[in-house]
This record gives sequence, structure tokens and C-alpha cells, in this order.
Amino acid sequence: MKKIKTALISVSDKKNLKPLLDTLKKNKVKIISSGGTYKEIKKLRFNCLEVSKFTNSSEILEGRVKTLHPKIHAGILNKRNNKFHLRDLKNNNFENIDLVIVNFYPFEKTLKETKNHNKIIEKIDVGGPTMVRSAAKNYQDVTVITSSEQYKELIDELIKNKGSTTLEFREKLSRVAFSETAYYDSVISKYFNKISKTIFPKKKIIHSNLIETLRYGENPHQKSGIYSENIEMNIKQVHGKQLSYNNYNDIFAALTISKSLSKNIGTVIVKHASPCGVSIKKDHLESYKSALACDPISAFGGIVSCNFKITKRLAVELNKLFLEVIVANGFDTNALRLLKSKKNLRLIDASNYSFKENLKFTSSNQEILIQSDDLNKLTNKDFKTVSKRKPSKQQMKNLIFAFNICRYVKSNAIVLATDETTAGIGSGQPSRLDSCQIAINKMKKFIDTDNEIVAASDAFFPFVDGIEKLVQSGITAIIQPYGSIRDKEIINFANQTNTVLVFSKTRHFRH
Amino acid sequence: MKKIKTALISVSDKKNLKPLLDTLKKNKVKIISSGGTYKEIKKLRFNCLEVSKFTNSSEILEGRVKTLHPKIHAGILNKRNNKFHLRDLKNNNFENIDLVIVNFYPFEKTLKETKNHNKIIEKIDVGGPTMVRSAAKNYQDVTVITSSEQYKELIDELIKNKGSTTLEFREKLSRVAFSETAYYDSVISKYFNKISKTIFPKKKIIHSNLIETLRYGENPHQKSGIYSENIEMNIKQVHGKQLSYNNYNDIFAALTISKSLSKNIGTVIVKHASPCGVSIKKDHLESYKSALACDPISAFGGIVSCNFKITKRLAVELNKLFLEVIVANGFDTNALRLLKSKKNLRLIDASNYSFKENLKFTSSNQEILIQSDDLNKLTNKDFKTVSKRKPSKQQMKNLIFAFNICRYVKSNAIVLATDETTAGIGSGQPSRLDSCQIAINKMKKFIDTDNEIVAASDAFFPFVDGIEKLVQSGITAIIQPYGSIRDKEIINFANQTNTVLVFSKTRHFRH
Repeated sequence: MKKIKTALISVSDKKNLKPLLDTLKKNKVKIISSGGTYKEIKKLRFNCLEVSKFTNSSEILEGRVKTLHPKIHAGILNKRNNKFHLRDLKNNNFENIDLVIVNFYPFEKTLKETKNHNKIIEKIDVGGPTMVRSAAKNYQDVTVITSSEQYKELIDELIKNKGSTTLEFREKLSRVAFSETAYYDSVISKYFNKISKTIFPKKKIIHSNLIETLRYGENPHQKSGIYSENIEMNIKQVHGKQLSYNNYNDIFAALTISKSLSKNIGTVIVKHASPCGVSIKKDHLESYKSALACDPISAFGGIVSCNFKITKRLAVELNKLFLEVIVANGFDTNALRLLKSKKNLRLIDASNYSFKENLKFTSSNQEILIQSDDLNKLTNKDFKTVSKRKPSKQQMKNLIFAFNICRYVKSNAIVLATDETTAGIGSGQPSRLDSCQIAINKMKKFIDTDNEIVAASDAFFPFVDGIEKLVQSGITAIIQPYGSIRDKEIINFANQTNTVLVFSKTRHFRH
Repeated sequence: MKKIKTALISVSDKKNLKPLLDTLKKNKVKIISSGGTYKEIKKLRFNCLEVSKFTNSSEILEGRVKTLHPKIHAGILNKRNNKFHLRDLKNNNFENIDLVIVNFYPFEKTLKETKNHNKIIEKIDVGGPTMVRSAAKNYQDVTVITSSEQYKELIDELIKNKGSTTLEFREKLSRVAFSETAYYDSVISKYFNKISKTIFPKKKIIHSNLIETLRYGENPHQKSGIYSENIEMNIKQVHGKQLSYNNYNDIFAALTISKSLSKNIGTVIVKHASPCGVSIKKDHLESYKSALACDPISAFGGIVSCNFKITKRLAVELNKLFLEVIVANGFDTNALRLLKSKKNLRLIDASNYSFKENLKFTSSNQEILIQSDDLNKLTNKDFKTVSKRKPSKQQMKNLIFAFNICRYVKSNAIVLATDETTAGIGSGQPSRLDSCQIAINKMKKFIDTDNEIVAASDAFFPFVDGIEKLVQSGITAIIQPYGSIRDKEIINFANQTNTVLVFSKTRHFRH
């Protein structure tokens, strides 16, 4: 238990000071403060000693140097039970500082407000983090507060312990303090990496904010939480049970596809983080019905992601199926009312969600694999017809659609498509031939059409056999990256069978 | 271009100072230093002014407060082209510090050397990071060096520019400096989280060290690098081409399985980050041959991971197959010589690799999903036979083996096994029934045995149909988690068909 006699307050965020100052006053705590905080405290009519008076050293360099003074840091850093420290304090006529209340210049917020480098640099707080680090290091004796959100618990603690704090309380605050300083410098570091276009620095630090802890991870015996680089996520749950780890994983898989589609178009159905039906038919209801028709069995218990606002007409259809989650760019009032009739169904508004240029990382044990994301949009120019038979406009449209979806299917990935809708998805197989077979089986089971069906492969076919299997099943046009030493054989086979063959410039593995 | 007249040196790592001091001397740089660094510089016979003399303020609190002084920080932080700053400096009789050479108390190293909390806390550097942050903030005027590895480039820069540094150089160093301070506090933050058992703090910061940048990511148009929480990874490449992103991804998938097996036992073959054959036969050569026999087609171009040391006898066999990578707990000399005959084949020694209790994270856009890993070992106690027919010892062994492998296969996962070897793996399907079919197809294609074949499912069968399909294909024993509302029907079906049915307590989704 440590009695608080002297507090140093230096806050950029000046919210909620009044009740805190009331409590400090009641406990006869001496307050030292600098700059704007001093003025604020005086305005609130509390006693306060200016830092410059305390240190007898004036505030200089337009505020750049205020608290970087031995009297301040010895006051914070001295071990109260160490006689050498006590002696040093006495000899220098220094005194203890027991409570440090500091929050930093808003560097992160400034990044969002300006692109002016000098203004940004000016917001790198030096004095604040130093006081916080001193206090957090010496938490055995010192209490450190780093956010106005902590005032309430400090007030409670001081009331409970008659002006003192417990070691447990101080240790917890010290833990939070170091997460604040680490976070703060991580944001600065990221900014410097960004402006210097340094993608893979020698030391990489990733900062994130807890969005929520989850009931469990992929399985009930795993602990889990979701974090974001931002304070809030840009998706909003408007109804239903708490989202699970697997829900989030599915939602992100679905949004990666949905947000790659043209504005206001497309339905994606995801199960086990893999698409089982996608349609980009312009009519919203049709796009849902078509996506569902690809594999209605897998869709059961899955998630539906609509890249448009859901209307009542669609909501009626959606309500016929058991779904875990529906994601959409909003819901109209009637649709929402209808969908809310299912108590557990999670409804997600992703209107504001969009993909930024981000690095994607995945960890295994203590290692982290980092790569730039694979989100570049593909257009006609990225493809080259290599067969004698040229694709019709309709075929080309379906080929590009199939290839674009194929990119988001786990490798080896084969996507069959017709009529702007997937007609069979083969995913996650070590053998490309097996992925072909899975896609074909799906097509045979669920698709009933007279229209031509096309196929896309996320990487090149190493042999003729895969393409042969597709052609034998009635596929008339195929798109794939080039690169096999048997490309010529494959082109010959396409020509022999009058199949359209298009090569893409890029491969799109996704594991 | 900024001329360096005064340098402040305060280093915990005292390596390589001599050549640097030579260069500084040649350029007539005044040196200020504190504590151990001062002694070291004097020992090397260079002139040096003690910090306490410079500030006229003695080193106190056993070194806790040395450089936290306005004269130091004004000297670093003042903007040389700002007349107010110039005036403040003059009025206070302060002088410029143009070069800051600081490295921190070795907090991370100390963590590895001791569990003594007080000793660890004492290694939290306050003065060092503050000087570095001041200098890095003011990089327009100040040069900051944070590691002895940077001395060489500083020397080169000073020679090239006759005692000055360029803005570009200083900005780069500033970027590195902030990555150092962020990294440093991230390690401290992680330590505090660990001792307080805080798994999901409000602000989470992940620190990592670049192991190497990779040629590209999953695809040639993606940039990539591999990082580790440690300075070095515990795997060692002993031969072959540079590892690719996909190689690393496959290696980690393989090691997750290999290292879960009993000591010195088991071969795992991985393709596209998914196992396509696993055997735990005691004879090493047999285990490889059996793992390969499960799916020799998929194994082509894959990676083989042996949870034992590879001998010549096995190397001869391995050399018959085209492989990207071989991972093993070492290679004996003859094996290594033989395997090295393939120039491109990557050989990885993973003898020292082991799994720690780590959080696993995966990012999507700006969000990060974090969960504890699913590595708990399962034993007989975790399972309960629910059918009338009880498993034989052999069946139970194969069931547990199949279930343990099933955990590492992408969901929905079905693993068939016989004779301590997988006999068919169905992975990554939105429908469990499809995964059954894929596993059965593999079995029918590749497995020729009179022994009983058992099946494992990573999650419960929602309906009887999956289990029915397995039994129809000749499977005589099945293991799965419980939890379907149709569990009773499934038990009844098992009893009707005289099938062994074992329930596991835990589910093991992996997406």
C-alpha cells in the first residue's frame, strides 16, 4: 500500500479532470503540472504548482523540454526503500512524485488529420512517454495513469484505500503503461516505414486494438480475441448472437470476395472460410438464388454476403435457409424487421468496409509470414487467348469471373462458371486433378443448364490430364496461368478439342 | 548536410567502439559519455567528458538518473534553424548535441537469463530510449545510432561527407531508432502481460525480427518476408535454393504435425500446406514408404518431413522422388552427401525446433484474429467408445492416430488410417460428406490392404449419411467428436452395422 502525496499531471486529453482533482484534493495530494494542463487545472479552480517552479528550470524550446529534468525523474524513479536513493534525494533537495498522470500528444489522431510531415513529427511526444516509462518501471512505489478512461478506477482505488494504492493496482497500471508506450512508438515506427517505403524493416512491430474477446477460438478449448489496427472495425453488427471466431473468419473470407466485385453487385456464400457459391447477376434476388443453387447443401449453416443493400424481397428468401450470418451493405427497414425475427441470426452491416493496401500476416509458432495482399483487379488486358478458337464475349466474361473467384478459393482451386455464376468449386486439394473432379461433381449434382460452362484454374495445369477431364465433362473454355513445360501440349489439346484456352499473366495461389 | 561537433555516447553493448572513436577524433568531435561507457572510452585512450560534468548534475539513484536533464535534451531537441530555440539555448548556456549513440540495457537478453523479476525490471532502460527518441524526433538536425552494427555506415558517412551527415541518412536512422524503441517496449509489454497472465490486452503489440525477405509471396506479384519473435529461427537450411514463401508455409504445416508425433518417429508429406500422407511406423524407411504410398501423385513436388535423423538408406529412396524440401531432425553424413547431389533440393535441419505455447494470429485487411494454438496432446482418456462393439487395441491405436492427424487437416477433415498410416485424407470441403468421398476415393485409388481401415472426423457428423458412406466403403471403426442432435441415430447406425464408434471430447476445426 502506498500513500499518494504528490501527483504530476500532464495530459494532452483534458477530459474528466474535475472529479479526479476533487478526489486528489480531498486526499491532500500536491499537484504539479505543466503547460496546458496547468492552465486547465487552474481554470477548474484547483491548486497546482507549475513544473518550471518545481524544477526551477524554465519550459524551453516551445515546450519541447519541460519535464526532462532530474528532479522530476528522481522524484519518480527513486526506490523508497533504498537508502542510497534516499540519500541522493536529500542531497539534491528532491522530493517524491507518487502519482504520474500522463497521456501523450495524439500522434495517431494527427496522422488521420494531416499529411504535413513537420506537423506530424511535432506530435511525437518525448517528455510524456519518458515520465510514463519512469513511473511504470518504478511501479513498486509509483502509480501511473495513461488514459482519462482510468480516472474512475483511480478514484475508486483512492477512496477505498484512503488515499493509497495497492501494489496489485500499480502493477496492473504499469502493464497498461508499457502497452501504451509500445503502441505509441509502434505507430510512429509504422509511419516512418511508410514514408520511406520500407516494407520489411529489420524489426517489425505490429500494433492493434482489442475489438472484443471471443467466447473461444476455432474450437471451444482455444482462447481467442479479435483485434484491429483501428480503434473500431468498419463492420457493424446490427442483430443476433455474439460473433464467434469462425464467424469472423468466414466474414473476412466473404468480404474479401464481395468487396472485389463491382459496386452494388454480387452474392457470395461461404462455409468453412471457403466460397461455395458466387453469383454476380445484376438482379439481387437472382444473384442470391443462383449462388445458393450452386451448392445448397454446403450453404446450410453458412454465411451469405451481399455486396448491396438487402431488401424485403430478398429477406423473405434468406429467411427460408438456416444461416449463421448475413453480411450486406445495409438492410432496408422492412428487410431488417423480417430478418430480426430469427433471434440468433447475426446481421452485419459492411457498408463502410473496404480493403486497404495492407500486409497480410500469418503466424506459426514463433514465426510470422508476411506478404502483400493479392487484391489487384484483373482486366481483359491481363489475359491472352492462345487457342485457335476465340472466346465469345459471353465466354470471356464468364472466364474472367471464374478466374477472379478462383483467386479466393484455397489452392489447388478450380472454379466452373456459367451465366455469371459459379457452377462448381473444387478447393484445397494437393492434386489439381482432384480439384477438377470435385468441381465437376458439384456441377453434375447441382447445375442444370444448357448454357456453356467455363473453367478457371488458379495455377497452370502441369499436364494435359486436368484439362482433358474438364473437356470430357463438357467444359468449352478454360482460363489458367501459363508456365508449364507442357503448355504447348495443352494448347494442342485445346485446339484438337475446339476448346477456348486463355492464359492469364498471373498465378493466384491462396493457402 | 549537418556537421557533427558534439556526440553523446551511452552504450550497453560496448563492441566496436575503437574505429568509431578514431573517426570521431579525426573529425574533432567532442564526446560526452556516462557511466560504463565513459570508462570504456577512457580505457581506449580517447578524450571524453562525463555527463555529470557536462550537466553539472551528479549521476544519482545508482545510475537510474544520469541523462534525464534539460541540458542534454535541449542540446538534442532544439531546432537549429529556430530563433526561439537558439535564444533558449543561449539563455541557459546549453550547447548542441549533434550525434547520439545509444543502445539500451539488454532487457530481452535478460529475460532469457533470469526469472528474477527485480533484476528484469532493473533492466528497463529509461534514459537510453529517451535520448534516442529525442534524437530521432529531431533527425532534421541530429544523427542517431542505436546499434553497434551501424558504426560502419556512420564511419563511411562521416568520411564521405567530411564529418557531416546527410538528411537522408539521418532520416533512415530515425526510422530505425523508432523501430528499436517500439520493439524494446513491446518486449517489456509482453513480459508484463505474461506475468499477469493477460492474454488479450486492450492494446496488443507484436514484435518480430526479420529473418529474410523472400523472392516473393504466395505468388510472384506479392512481396514477402519472414519474421520471427526470436533473432534466429530454430530451423537451419543445410542445402539448396533459397526457401520461398510457399516452402516456409509448407514447412510449418509439416513441422506442426511432425513435432506432434512421438520422439524419433514418423514421416509427414505435405503439399499445398496440407498433409497428403503420414505414417508413424517405427521403421523409418517403412514410415516414408507408407506415407508416400497414400498418395504418390500428390507427393510429387511436395515436402517430406521426417521426425528423425535421415540415414543413407532413406536418402536413396528420397532421391527417387522430385521433392521441393526435405525436413528432418538432422541428416547423417552419407545421407547428406547423397541428397546434396540434387542442387535445388532444400534440406532443412529441424532438430532444434519445438513448439512453444504461442498465440496464433492471422490477419485480414486491418483486422487480426488471435487464438491460442490447438496443440494439446490427446490420450485414451480423451475418448469414449459409444458403440456396442468395442475397439481392438489395434483399432484404438489407429483411431487415435487418425484423429490426431485429422486435427492438422483443413476442415472439414476426414482421415482414414490403417497400420499406423493414413489411408485417405479428405480436406478443405464445405460439406463433410464431400470430404468423406475424397478420402474414400484416395483409399480406393492407392491403398491395397487386407487390414481394417478406420476413420476420423475433425467435427461431429451432423447426419447419418457421412458415417453411412464410410461404412459402405468398408470402414469398420470411426472416431468423431459428439454434439449432433442426431448423435443417437448415429450410434444406432453404428450398432446396426457392427461398427466401432468412439466419441472424442474435443473438436478440432482448422481453417
